[in-house]
Amino acid sequence: MAQKPSIPKGTRDFNAEEVAKRSYIMETIKRQFQLYGFQPIETPSFENSETLMGKYGDEGDRLIFKILNSGEYLRKVSDEDLIAKNEANIALKISEKALRYDLTVPFARYVVQHQNEIEFPFKRYQIQPVWRADRPQKGRFREFYQCDADVVGSKSLFQEVEFIQLYDAVFTSLKLEGVTIKINNRKILSGIAEVIDAHDKLIDFTVALDKLDKIGEEKVKDEMRSKGISEDGISKLQPLFSLQGDFGDQVGSLKSILNASEVGLKGIEELEFINTAISNLGLKTAKLQLDVTLARGLNYYTGAIFEVSAPEDVKMGSIGGGGRYDDLTSIFGKPDTSGVGISFGLDRIYLVLEELGLFPETITEATKVLFLSFGSEEAMASLEAVSKLRESGVKAEIYPDAITSGKQMKKQMTYANRRHIPFVVLVGEEELKSGMFALKNMETGAQEKLGLQELLSTLQ
Amino acid sequence: MAQKPSIPKGTRDFNAEEVAKRSYIMETIKRQFQLYGFQPIETPSFENSETLMGKYGDEGDRLIFKILNSGEYLRKVSDEDLIAKNEANIALKISEKALRYDLTVPFARYVVQHQNEIEFPFKRYQIQPVWRADRPQKGRFREFYQCDADVVGSKSLFQEVEFIQLYDAVFTSLKLEGVTIKINNRKILSGIAEVIDAHDKLIDFTVALDKLDKIGEEKVKDEMRSKGISEDGISKLQPLFSLQGDFGDQVGSLKSILNASEVGLKGIEELEFINTAISNLGLKTAKLQLDVTLARGLNYYTGAIFEVSAPEDVKMGSIGGGGRYDDLTSIFGKPDTSGVGISFGLDRIYLVLEELGLFPETITEATKVLFLSFGSEEAMASLEAVSKLRESGVKAEIYPDAITSGKQMKKQMTYANRRHIPFVVLVGEEELKSGMFALKNMETGAQEKLGLQELLSTLQ
Repeated sequence: MAQKPSIPKGTRDFNAEEVAKRSYIMETIKRQFQLYGFQPIETPSFENSETLMGKYGDEGDRLIFKILNSGEYLRKVSDEDLIAKNEANIALKISEKALRYDLTVPFARYVVQHQNEIEFPFKRYQIQPVWRADRPQKGRFREFYQCDADVVGSKSLFQEVEFIQLYDAVFTSLKLEGVTIKINNRKILSGIAEVIDAHDKLIDFTVALDKLDKIGEEKVKDEMRSKGISEDGISKLQPLFSLQGDFGDQVGSLKSILNASEVGLKGIEELEFINTAISNLGLKTAKLQLDVTLARGLNYYTGAIFEVSAPEDVKMGSIGGGGRYDDLTSIFGKPDTSGVGISFGLDRIYLVLEELGLFPETITEATKVLFLSFGSEEAMASLEAVSKLRESGVKAEIYPDAITSGKQMKKQMTYANRRHIPFVVLVGEEELKSGMFALKNMETGAQEKLGLQELLSTLQ
Repeated sequence: MAQKPSIPKGTRDFNAEEVAKRSYIMETIKRQFQLYGFQPIETPSFENSETLMGKYGDEGDRLIFKILNSGEYLRKVSDEDLIAKNEANIALKISEKALRYDLTVPFARYVVQHQNEIEFPFKRYQIQPVWRADRPQKGRFREFYQCDADVVGSKSLFQEVEFIQLYDAVFTSLKLEGVTIKINNRKILSGIAEVIDAHDKLIDFTVALDKLDKIGEEKVKDEMRSKGISEDGISKLQPLFSLQGDFGDQVGSLKSILNASEVGLKGIEELEFINTAISNLGLKTAKLQLDVTLARGLNYYTGAIFEVSAPEDVKMGSIGGGGRYDDLTSIFGKPDTSGVGISFGLDRIYLVLEELGLFPETITEATKVLFLSFGSEEAMASLEAVSKLRESGVKAEIYPDAITSGKQMKKQMTYANRRHIPFVVLVGEEELKSGMFALKNMETGAQEKLGLQELLSTLQ
């Protein structure tokens, strides 16, 4: 009995059109990465388990796909663990490799492992799939690509400036105008925590503040109170509730809150440097916006934090994010190596471009001309012409079976239509004798007889 | 204590140069695939285990990487199996997904699953990694790319003709001239088995015959005898031991052996059709050669069998292979769908191009110009120029830290040298005032002062 074929949940097949559209996005990003001086690396799909485990928190560990050891995989498992069904212990013994969960940890591992071959500052990009055993849902997959660019070994804030330019360059190239690049700084968040004396409540605080637009000032304050933030702290934050105006105005309000916090003021200084540089350089189509509620990967970032939103008329979560992390490689034995990087959300960018109709029509153009033949000799003559066309760079195909009936003629024309092939060449007995080719424009229906040279120049 | 980082055996990290060289090969292959009308598809890295298991024989099943189920993975395992350490039974319960072992079985699954969306004949290409738990050795990896092109839904021998042309086109594009495309036909092998009355000894027979050049006629016959091939059979095969001359001569000898075998003669007819067509069309740099010992994937192919060898002066196994299989998709419930395809051995092609020095120098050219600045204001001016250069398509970088000492100057120049960046721009106080840029050619040492427009046109 044959199996009914299917694929694992959360994974996808991609057809020719989808591959072409995804390639278009990835090639556009890659092109900008290269213009900015980033170099590609690739790392293995699976890493040793100890490289990945413990790097993403307990939830992350749970979502890492583990690979069963080959051969006698139960050899090292104790009878006690087996009888007790001790899944945690057994997993350590039967699985030594795991699929990559993101590109950042493998990158950190790569930098440490190859530090003697690398010139620092090291600007690398990496576009590869990652795997997560997450519950699949709309827009969330168990296999998906990440597109990352990072610099390690430089503390210069010009890196942050260039990453903002890079975001602008990529989205402008994709004709996706009007994205918002939101920026924050972990040091500002630390400063706020210091001011309200609640270092352990930073997440509660940012989650609550993020709702300001939706639920209003009073309810945000209620939520903060319920999370244990003091009345005194909340009153100190009063200016945050009316953060308004341009970057400069907002920074002014922040300064009034953070004037007693050294780290907070340092964060403001960094923000101002970046904003001034970007104002001088100008952005093509994106806008830069301060967002004090931005806190992605809080335990991870130490300086700038970035997140990109699609244009306002598109409902979509963030389509990119990143930030600075001062201590990425110390987990692998190389301390004091500051890094900063950004990531592009391929799947969401795809959905946005689709929704706004921004994919160029040309990218899905496949075969330009299909040869239909009325016999084997005619097919042979067709193949000679097809070979010449391909040598001149024209995508050309020959329908493999000869037309021997009206029904077959119709089938082959339908094939050309369904494949969106714009030209068809018909080669029958008459053409064979005269050495001519009947070229049919599938859109207009126009037909003309051409010699080989004319055919080549028409289709080129 | 920090971990000493490493990667699993049989896997590889690729640095920028390696990624560029691999991309060059893959893009060249892809370009030709597209010129020949093949369309890209991609399938998930892991499939349901039942899609893969049992498709590659017992040895293959053993080499498939299995993925441990998430969550309470021991839930479905019986106590009896656990206590008995019944690894086979337990594996079925704790693992439901497995990493792709090749691209052919996932392709067959794809064709059946999406048959209603596909126009047949369906010409697809697929360039993706596969994984095998093989013992790693020189040139054999646990993760490697396959580059496949296949047509399903056409029995026309013109497909075989086009695949030979495609091999020729790809290797010619890679400037790898003088490869040999060896061809055989499964029907000829079946015919031989029929003639010597030894259907079950085809592999023994071809393995022995393959040694003719190395050990000579008598020792080959000894080996055949030791494998139980009859004296009568061996004498019937006498013409095989002196197969010589061109394609036509060899086909003549084969005919004399196979004149009583219907299937054998059919195989010869197919070979002759293909050879005649290729002779008429001509090959650019490859040569086509009949090889009756060619038997790769014997149980799999039903018609033509291909294998490509590197030019004679390079010691390397096959760099490509393929053939026709008449019943690929029936395992997934779609019978009578003939397919034919070829594959390119990326890793071996890489080694051959490296050995022969055939990688174009341009492909590893990364950044064209690096800006070095003597202060923050100078860096800002540099970044404006860098932005303009990038907009004109010039790969440009700015060194993030300002030069404040002779030592730093040297460090940054060394960085440019090691990165093989051909031009450096120096921006100091003087340049800042005059609005000029000092451009240094790193190869010749020549230095000139240019305005922004001149700089742009010089570097473009």
